[in-house]
Amino acid sequence: MLMPKETYKNHYEELFSDENWLVETHEWNQQKQAFRETQFTIGNGDLCLRGVLEENPYDSYAGTYISGIYDRTGAQITEIVNLPNPLPIRIDVYGEKLDPVATDIVHHHRTLDLKTATLYRHSVYKTTHKKRLNYISRRFVSLHDKNLVVMEVEVTPLDAAMTINMQTGIDTGVTNKGTVTEGRKKHFMTCETSIKTGYNYLCVETFEKKVFVAYASALEIVYNGKARTVSERAVNLRVLKNETIIFRKYITVRSSSSAGLAEIKKETLSALKKARNKGFERLIAEHNAAWQKKWSVCDINIEGDEDATRALRFNIYHLIICGSETNDDASIGAKTLSGEGYRGHIFWDTELFILPFFIYTNPKVARNLLMYRYRRLDAARNNAAAKGYEGALFPWESADTGEECTPSWAKNFDGSIIKIVTMDEEHHIVSDIAYAFSNYAKVTGDESFLWKHAIELIVETARFWTSRVVLNRKKRRYEILHAMGPDEFHEDVDNNAYTNVLAKWNLLAACDLLAKTARKSPARLKQISKKLRIKPKEIAMWKNLGDRIHIPFSKKKRLIEQFDGYFRLNDHRITQLNDHFMPELPISLDWKDVSKTQFIKQADVVMLLYLLNDHFSHEEKRRNYYYYERRTLHKSSLSPAIHSIVGLEVGDEDKALHYFAHALSTDLSDIHGNSSDGIHAASAGGTWQAAIMGFAGLRPHDDFLALNPHLPSNWKKMSFAIWWRGALLKIRITSKKTGVEITKNPKNSKIFLQVYDQTQFLKPKGITCFERPETKRKKKRRES
Amino acid sequence: MLMPKETYKNHYEELFSDENWLVETHEWNQQKQAFRETQFTIGNGDLCLRGVLEENPYDSYAGTYISGIYDRTGAQITEIVNLPNPLPIRIDVYGEKLDPVATDIVHHHRTLDLKTATLYRHSVYKTTHKKRLNYISRRFVSLHDKNLVVMEVEVTPLDAAMTINMQTGIDTGVTNKGTVTEGRKKHFMTCETSIKTGYNYLCVETFEKKVFVAYASALEIVYNGKARTVSERAVNLRVLKNETIIFRKYITVRSSSSAGLAEIKKETLSALKKARNKGFERLIAEHNAAWQKKWSVCDINIEGDEDATRALRFNIYHLIICGSETNDDASIGAKTLSGEGYRGHIFWDTELFILPFFIYTNPKVARNLLMYRYRRLDAARNNAAAKGYEGALFPWESADTGEECTPSWAKNFDGSIIKIVTMDEEHHIVSDIAYAFSNYAKVTGDESFLWKHAIELIVETARFWTSRVVLNRKKRRYEILHAMGPDEFHEDVDNNAYTNVLAKWNLLAACDLLAKTARKSPARLKQISKKLRIKPKEIAMWKNLGDRIHIPFSKKKRLIEQFDGYFRLNDHRITQLNDHFMPELPISLDWKDVSKTQFIKQADVVMLLYLLNDHFSHEEKRRNYYYYERRTLHKSSLSPAIHSIVGLEVGDEDKALHYFAHALSTDLSDIHGNSSDGIHAASAGGTWQAAIMGFAGLRPHDDFLALNPHLPSNWKKMSFAIWWRGALLKIRITSKKTGVEITKNPKNSKIFLQVYDQTQFLKPKGITCFERPETKRKKKRRES
Repeated sequence: MLMPKETYKNHYEELFSDENWLVETHEWNQQKQAFRETQFTIGNGDLCLRGVLEENPYDSYAGTYISGIYDRTGAQITEIVNLPNPLPIRIDVYGEKLDPVATDIVHHHRTLDLKTATLYRHSVYKTTHKKRLNYISRRFVSLHDKNLVVMEVEVTPLDAAMTINMQTGIDTGVTNKGTVTEGRKKHFMTCETSIKTGYNYLCVETFEKKVFVAYASALEIVYNGKARTVSERAVNLRVLKNETIIFRKYITVRSSSSAGLAEIKKETLSALKKARNKGFERLIAEHNAAWQKKWSVCDINIEGDEDATRALRFNIYHLIICGSETNDDASIGAKTLSGEGYRGHIFWDTELFILPFFIYTNPKVARNLLMYRYRRLDAARNNAAAKGYEGALFPWESADTGEECTPSWAKNFDGSIIKIVTMDEEHHIVSDIAYAFSNYAKVTGDESFLWKHAIELIVETARFWTSRVVLNRKKRRYEILHAMGPDEFHEDVDNNAYTNVLAKWNLLAACDLLAKTARKSPARLKQISKKLRIKPKEIAMWKNLGDRIHIPFSKKKRLIEQFDGYFRLNDHRITQLNDHFMPELPISLDWKDVSKTQFIKQADVVMLLYLLNDHFSHEEKRRNYYYYERRTLHKSSLSPAIHSIVGLEVGDEDKALHYFAHALSTDLSDIHGNSSDGIHAASAGGTWQAAIMGFAGLRPHDDFLALNPHLPSNWKKMSFAIWWRGALLKIRITSKKTGVEITKNPKNSKIFLQVYDQTQFLKPKGITCFERPETKRKKKRRES
Repeated sequence: MLMPKETYKNHYEELFSDENWLVETHEWNQQKQAFRETQFTIGNGDLCLRGVLEENPYDSYAGTYISGIYDRTGAQITEIVNLPNPLPIRIDVYGEKLDPVATDIVHHHRTLDLKTATLYRHSVYKTTHKKRLNYISRRFVSLHDKNLVVMEVEVTPLDAAMTINMQTGIDTGVTNKGTVTEGRKKHFMTCETSIKTGYNYLCVETFEKKVFVAYASALEIVYNGKARTVSERAVNLRVLKNETIIFRKYITVRSSSSAGLAEIKKETLSALKKARNKGFERLIAEHNAAWQKKWSVCDINIEGDEDATRALRFNIYHLIICGSETNDDASIGAKTLSGEGYRGHIFWDTELFILPFFIYTNPKVARNLLMYRYRRLDAARNNAAAKGYEGALFPWESADTGEECTPSWAKNFDGSIIKIVTMDEEHHIVSDIAYAFSNYAKVTGDESFLWKHAIELIVETARFWTSRVVLNRKKRRYEILHAMGPDEFHEDVDNNAYTNVLAKWNLLAACDLLAKTARKSPARLKQISKKLRIKPKEIAMWKNLGDRIHIPFSKKKRLIEQFDGYFRLNDHRITQLNDHFMPELPISLDWKDVSKTQFIKQADVVMLLYLLNDHFSHEEKRRNYYYYERRTLHKSSLSPAIHSIVGLEVGDEDKALHYFAHALSTDLSDIHGNSSDGIHAASAGGTWQAAIMGFAGLRPHDDFLALNPHLPSNWKKMSFAIWWRGALLKIRITSKKTGVEITKNPKNSKIFLQVYDQTQFLKPKGITCFERPETKRKKKRRES
């Protein structure tokens, strides 16, 4: 029951960054509890904790996830493990639990400070006896010390002295949600617990892979100006009116599948000791400094559109906290580490939607994400072989082993089984991954990766396509039958344009890469050819297949046809928009018949226009964009951001802004109603791409980087940074000019840039300024 | 989703006792889940486990309770601790959990075999892929080895081979339910866990009293005729069609607040080892033998009314499983150990409703229940002193320490606070307890207890009344003001007849007892007088007060008046019966006005007529019974059984049978809708009393035992056993005669019995037969 608003002071507010860094809620709403938990997830790239309230109210869903820890036990298919929750602190007063479900809450305010990745909270409770308590908390997962979680809870009786009970611990009673057929399930068992003066220790082990996850925690109570460490997990204290008691919890978490129990215990405890020695304030300072460093590269600041700035930061924040700089054996699931949607599985979302952000802002993470795939090349080879294909077939859904993790069925509302076919048809994932390897190599100039890893992966994926295409003898062309493009409304189609063009690209990219190698280093070509048993004949075959893959095109409409026969499907008009001004299926149609129409779920041809944007003329883009945009229902969060970018390319700023705003709000406003299952990572990555590839117009070329900014009229200035070929560029764009400064350049590379229509090397120091041509002309006129 | 019924064979059915021993359900009903969990609770007097399904379906409420283990942490008031649940076994097939909420269940049958206290179950699941699995289980808490739980689950794929995943463990994720203001809470923390080959070990510690509870468990898998012990808590097995896999779990549980961690661990593990050495079959045999021995005394068999027999056995079963033969420091809560209703607190229910069953069938347990109070005499003295009284004031709600545990407030639906006054007004508990001590001593003839414990308690309770009564100088009588009788509809009344008569009894009982001591052993009197500082003047005062306590009586109505002014309250007629044919408040009245009417909640004057039945003439009983019976709404489960007994006394068999049937069904049919919170222990005890004190007409007298049977016409024969003055009597009653046989008589006491109007010593061997006078007369007539 939320009482009439009163104003309460929260002394943490003084610590808050400016409001463009804050994501806040000012109310308690039980229906939105799970959504807020997702939104307020904190993490450091390896460990993420859903933003559950300390008191675990009824229906709360604590989620503690470590990147790469999966388990199948009790589940239809392997899933990310929900590990013990280190956050619970339960406070009660005379047996009344402070908890917004159990007790009256007269004030409730939560603030995620994106700049310091710290989650603050301020509640005021009123007990049944009408006595108020001030409740303040903050917590962070340290970015500086990757195994550390620090939290603090302050309680102050406002109306009368009170006896306060506090209980805390590491909660092993957590479960994975799973589907209705599975029920909740646990993926670990406790293998050791101990309580010692000064710390508590817990070690759990996953059932299937026997991964140990150890927790050590220490509890400090600050009262009357004195801090003491207690070993109890339940304490009982008398607190006077207006006096404050502070509970501080330091938690270290380590996981390992290789170390022994004794070793992991030692490490976890020594990490705790180290953290305790540093002390609370220093831990905060180190954490904040690490985030400051992070944001100095990752931030996008739009002067003139503070809402967009804040929303972009929110999306970027959620990418940062799930990308590991140290682990090259895990990747980012479609819902990040903020929920259990899609069971933590990795889709093409990672390579095409999320990866670009990391390629440009943190190549180390990008490389790890690609290494995750590279390390599973053998699994992909086995997967291909098992299905009768050559080369490597990456799974549509991937988890820890690299085996196909798409569930083969799901239960429908009526109890019937829905057969899931994505893994047999959405083979575009193969070239999507190859594309990502190529893109990374192009942007970073990381040659060692190119020769050691990218080339092998691009060859093996090209080989897959040689076995996937079939020759249409009559039409003397190669075709890809029984496929599905990004648009999942149309299953089992022939010659999906997206799939076929990407397959073509993949085959030709393999040829190009080998040709380039031959030019640059015949010795290396020999070495690679030997390792991968590549014969010149095979390269020729790739070229032949690539050149002859059929790309459906309607000469009459002068349009790419999404797949064979698409234009013969029923063509309806969109007549209705939903609350978010997004198109709805006309009410005259039934969802089960959507495959008979030209309505599509998400960017498919438009995605192609974006990915291979230099393959299409401006006119081709324009024509195809408008045709497909009008038939897209955007029932995937992957769609709007891409429509924003391509919209800008074809000069439709209105549409671009509409789709950009939509993508930005996805998890800020729970637009799809399922943010409770986790952040829509692809959409988050899409917003970064819409800002940088869209409004800033960034495009990587072999020999230079292009920027073709187009700022909306209310954007006064857009500032951001990117890594390009080993140099860190700070870029500031206004409506009149673009300034680029090299702020780091360890290899002293020469940086060649094309901005607007001007091409030049950047000055090694200071800002290189590019003026917008119209501005120039105006200036000239004035000068003349 | 329950499918159309099919018949499935369950090979356990061959083990079942005859159907008059079985409590069964043939359906899965999620709404009734918590009710069945209560009903199917198993236990051995010290440890009880709610009958939760092994798979812990959604909304299931596992309850594991050890008599006497309470904790307050996080609760408004101390409560019985819900301990880790040792029962979970989770089985899934291709990620589909076998669980009636998650999976289709085509057959579901649970059977509690009361004779062997074994809970059986048979379910048939159908997976989403339409493959059936046969699921059978049984479990028991050993009565022979008090620390042992044994369970078995069998799974058989019926339609196709399947890969079966099984997970098990001791679930520490359990909580106490608490009230809405508390939320769910935990009363223990894990202090040690370890996994070794052959066993798992867990030790938890309660927060407040630091009681250790240790569990050791071993898992055995029987497959292909081979049994093996596994240390894994999750196993994955391929099982062929029609092949059966059996999971057997042996669990030992020990608790201690005094022993060290190492000691308790050693004991728990050695108990497990011992059990394992005995083997499954022998453990069952020992358990069954222990129950056979138990039932040989406790059973009541009514030939001609099998439903009543079965219902009686169900009620008796639930008394047996919560009465400890070994622990004299714990008592039985109002809801037994089968749920968390009233937080496991002990009320007068125990002494007046439950205790008689144990006095007559298991005096050892009865003595322990009384010793629980005796051991808290100091706490009662402190409680009295704190409230300004003399002697001992037992708390209205009691838990482990003997301090008052009645919550002082509760939250109403509208958020307002209801002040709870029972502990300040229902002081009748003091004489209720004294009465129980006296009753026990009378029936058992346990003189050592009488001199050592009962006398002290009866003196201290008498002393309480000396300070509780006030002199009405005008009327020259003693009164008890601001009281509440058993009828809780009327708070804060003066001179509640029940309270006053019992207080009078208490004062005079103390005098009598001391007088008797003076006669029998002046030396002992001296000793007691010295210990308790009793002066002759004090005894005289008790006599004076007892004689002059006002008992409200209406000369006009020739009725006991429930309290001063009761007859001036509005007197309405009952116009409506509910589904159970029990009276409802007339719809013209509002519940908040019930105190202004003569409607009463439960037996109050009628309870008095029962307890002190030799204080009232038949005519007094008849007149008062009918007056109050017509105004009783029976909103307490304590009421019907007493009305059955007194109904019989006044010759109203119809009413007696109606109330008897109602009391019998209380927890068989969830008549009050709250059996999910636990068995109504007082009602269960009441059914035994209704059978024995009612239909068999048993009454203890100082010098003899009286039986005045009155069997309903359809009862062909009623057989039962009771302990009387150290001898075990087997009694068989038919409509024509009563046979009594002494089956145990270690002290060779002479047993003097009055049956019908005949009084005689029982034969030391063989059956002593008493013929019903009418029968005799008939016989004589025939003879003549």
